[in-house]
Amino acid sequence: MPTTDSPMRTLDEHRAAALALAAPLPEVVVGLDAALGAVLAQDVRTSERLPRWDNSAMDGYAVRADDVRDATAGAPVTLRVVADLPAGTSGTPTVEPGTAARIMTGAPVPPGADTVVPVEDTDAGTVTVQVRAAKAIGSHVRRAGEDASPGDLVVAAGTLLGPAHVAAVASVGVADVPVHRRPRVAVVSTGDELVPPGTPLAHGQIPDSNSWLLAAAVRDAGGEPVRLGPVGDDPDALRDLLRGLDDDTDVDAVVTSGGVSVGAFDVVKAALRDEPGVDFLPVAVQPGKPQGLGRLPGGTPVFALPGNPVSSFVSFEVFVRPALLRMRGLADVERPTTTAVVDDGWRTPPGRAQVMPVRFVRPYVARDDRGTAGPASLSTAPGTADARPPHVVRATAGGSGSHLVARLAVAEGLAVVPAEIEQVAPGDRVTVLRIAP
Amino acid sequence: MPTTDSPMRTLDEHRAAALALAAPLPEVVVGLDAALGAVLAQDVRTSERLPRWDNSAMDGYAVRADDVRDATAGAPVTLRVVADLPAGTSGTPTVEPGTAARIMTGAPVPPGADTVVPVEDTDAGTVTVQVRAAKAIGSHVRRAGEDASPGDLVVAAGTLLGPAHVAAVASVGVADVPVHRRPRVAVVSTGDELVPPGTPLAHGQIPDSNSWLLAAAVRDAGGEPVRLGPVGDDPDALRDLLRGLDDDTDVDAVVTSGGVSVGAFDVVKAALRDEPGVDFLPVAVQPGKPQGLGRLPGGTPVFALPGNPVSSFVSFEVFVRPALLRMRGLADVERPTTTAVVDDGWRTPPGRAQVMPVRFVRPYVARDDRGTAGPASLSTAPGTADARPPHVVRATAGGSGSHLVARLAVAEGLAVVPAEIEQVAPGDRVTVLRIAP
Repeated sequence: MPTTDSPMRTLDEHRAAALALAAPLPEVVVGLDAALGAVLAQDVRTSERLPRWDNSAMDGYAVRADDVRDATAGAPVTLRVVADLPAGTSGTPTVEPGTAARIMTGAPVPPGADTVVPVEDTDAGTVTVQVRAAKAIGSHVRRAGEDASPGDLVVAAGTLLGPAHVAAVASVGVADVPVHRRPRVAVVSTGDELVPPGTPLAHGQIPDSNSWLLAAAVRDAGGEPVRLGPVGDDPDALRDLLRGLDDDTDVDAVVTSGGVSVGAFDVVKAALRDEPGVDFLPVAVQPGKPQGLGRLPGGTPVFALPGNPVSSFVSFEVFVRPALLRMRGLADVERPTTTAVVDDGWRTPPGRAQVMPVRFVRPYVARDDRGTAGPASLSTAPGTADARPPHVVRATAGGSGSHLVARLAVAEGLAVVPAEIEQVAPGDRVTVLRIAP
Repeated sequence: MPTTDSPMRTLDEHRAAALALAAPLPEVVVGLDAALGAVLAQDVRTSERLPRWDNSAMDGYAVRADDVRDATAGAPVTLRVVADLPAGTSGTPTVEPGTAARIMTGAPVPPGADTVVPVEDTDAGTVTVQVRAAKAIGSHVRRAGEDASPGDLVVAAGTLLGPAHVAAVASVGVADVPVHRRPRVAVVSTGDELVPPGTPLAHGQIPDSNSWLLAAAVRDAGGEPVRLGPVGDDPDALRDLLRGLDDDTDVDAVVTSGGVSVGAFDVVKAALRDEPGVDFLPVAVQPGKPQGLGRLPGGTPVFALPGNPVSSFVSFEVFVRPALLRMRGLADVERPTTTAVVDDGWRTPPGRAQVMPVRFVRPYVARDDRGTAGPASLSTAPGTADARPPHVVRATAGGSGSHLVARLAVAEGLAVVPAEIEQVAPGDRVTVLRIAP
């Protein structure tokens, strides 16, 4: 039945409803090799001081500062070399007055020594060594505990683990990393007209692209897609499929595309018509007005998106992605935004927010100034980097173009135009969600 | 032997030398499920018009515009419904004068019809239908070819494939995607002091974190790491290991950490001393001054990085990552940059560029204005988004801190300070490579 006369939810209201379906998934323990890109579920703390012991910050000689207090280039002090101390050494000879130990960066400072003389300030001797410069006591020694004390926080729960976080966890001897499980998300595209890409097409058939779009978007959001599409326009078969997914404890969410509109063959709507936990309703947004949202009887969140590729794409971005990021355990579920100047201009629908795929005309920052063909200079002088706002134009020329999947590929951002705006003019500023890396 | 008196390469010169070792890897064909994050090796073009045939942009009725030219809400025109046309239909009944076909979004417009009347402008009848509004000829019909013509470029070679690109490739029926092979990168950390994380530590031992750091950084750069560390300070054993990697045609590059300095136990330097293709030399950068770079006899690029974790991290970022991105087939191998205002200040080494890990004090864009705890409002009015420059402070308090791995984890960017600057003062602007998502 037509639902266009129902009161419409706002974009923000529907986002809030979608996000309310999501909660951080339970903790699992993974190895360091699987930690990158996961979200830490518990604080990682150090149980020891870091560094664990006084150690050398330089390659050189561990000495007693008092022994070399009068050393100069013209009047070097000669010490007897009593040991070689590579990093990893466990022998700890005592440095008595008049002696030195050859020491490498990172090696424990031996008993008796209080100072390190860099090799550059010596003759690099191996039996005796001439020290050519005095050093303040403690020079070039990294003190035990100067990085962290026992119990100090190293990486906080909720952190998205990048390479440096993985290294920090490893550096405190933690090999089993408590992270939130990643969401497994079933993806179902619907429509009798859809055939797998690469299959010869009969008249009226098109290749399925939405299941690939949504599966890739799930993976890009840090989830694990289970791609099940395309399925045909048979409500009973789809209902059975969705029930099976709801019963599968390995499936954390279901995303469908198509079949949610006012047409006579809207399969997702028909399949879920009798589910009290799932609502189909219009949202005041373009594209993406018809939406289904809720929980299947077993509690699995279901996001029923419209089938036009651009509508599916935009709906995923603004409604599904934040929910998946929350399931992963992230507190900040937002895309980064920037303010951009519009170079073209377009009409927007009265009373509906608009989410317009755009591309940047002038790169976001001073990329072009550095060039891309040759090796770039990183040594840009402070103050010269470009801080002007970027400019954008629509990615899909010629209207909202919700079917123009081939042109969607150039989108680098989504301009969000509030419902009360009816016209975006050249020179206007818009808020852009940055969706390209 | 000490090499600190040799003329030093600049940061940019060493970057150029590192990048010169890299070339795009050969093409492989992958399925659509493995295409996300790969770089397209050949242009993908459409062999057909897109859309392939005139189709309906709405759920409604395919009619002859002439039949409904006098229709109004007060005086509807009644037409006989001769067919139901769901999307995916292959039957094509002709719409004769006085008739209409019920049609769903995306279904081919049948012969005879030239216009679609949305269901909202009808009584939604199934035997006969009352049309309540006149429509200009061609209304709500997507014309064949309005998106693309045969031969048109859909996604260009060199594109990093995101979800929308994968969908665009699928939409033109391409299931086998030609992409550049991802680089397989062997990672070797060195040092007798290193033991696997989780192993009990003897005095002088520390957990290996660099092999995990670099393996994660390789993966983060889109490569496939082969983690082999830690290995001990035995030059002969390391030489054999590196020769084996050089002979392995599956290994595209080797990254080592440690053993490149002026110490007496510098194992990487010792193992590669007689390799004419590999240079060990000082680079005018802090951290990361001692570097090894070149090709093993079989041609495999080797990046020999210093062993302090922060030095390894920074060296990977500025020397190795761009080379891996080039191997993947990307033209733009740069991190995005931004200009930031420094809130603290620090001394920088005379005559050397500095790459300082920093964190953002005020978020990069208007994130805070939107809040993170509740559902965000996307409908920010144009012009209100925050365009002020972000502020940064050092991630590792207390000097360059190249051993402070636990604090490195908070770094969100790398401030690049030119060699001619000796002091960064509060309020100065610096160029920051953004390394956090």
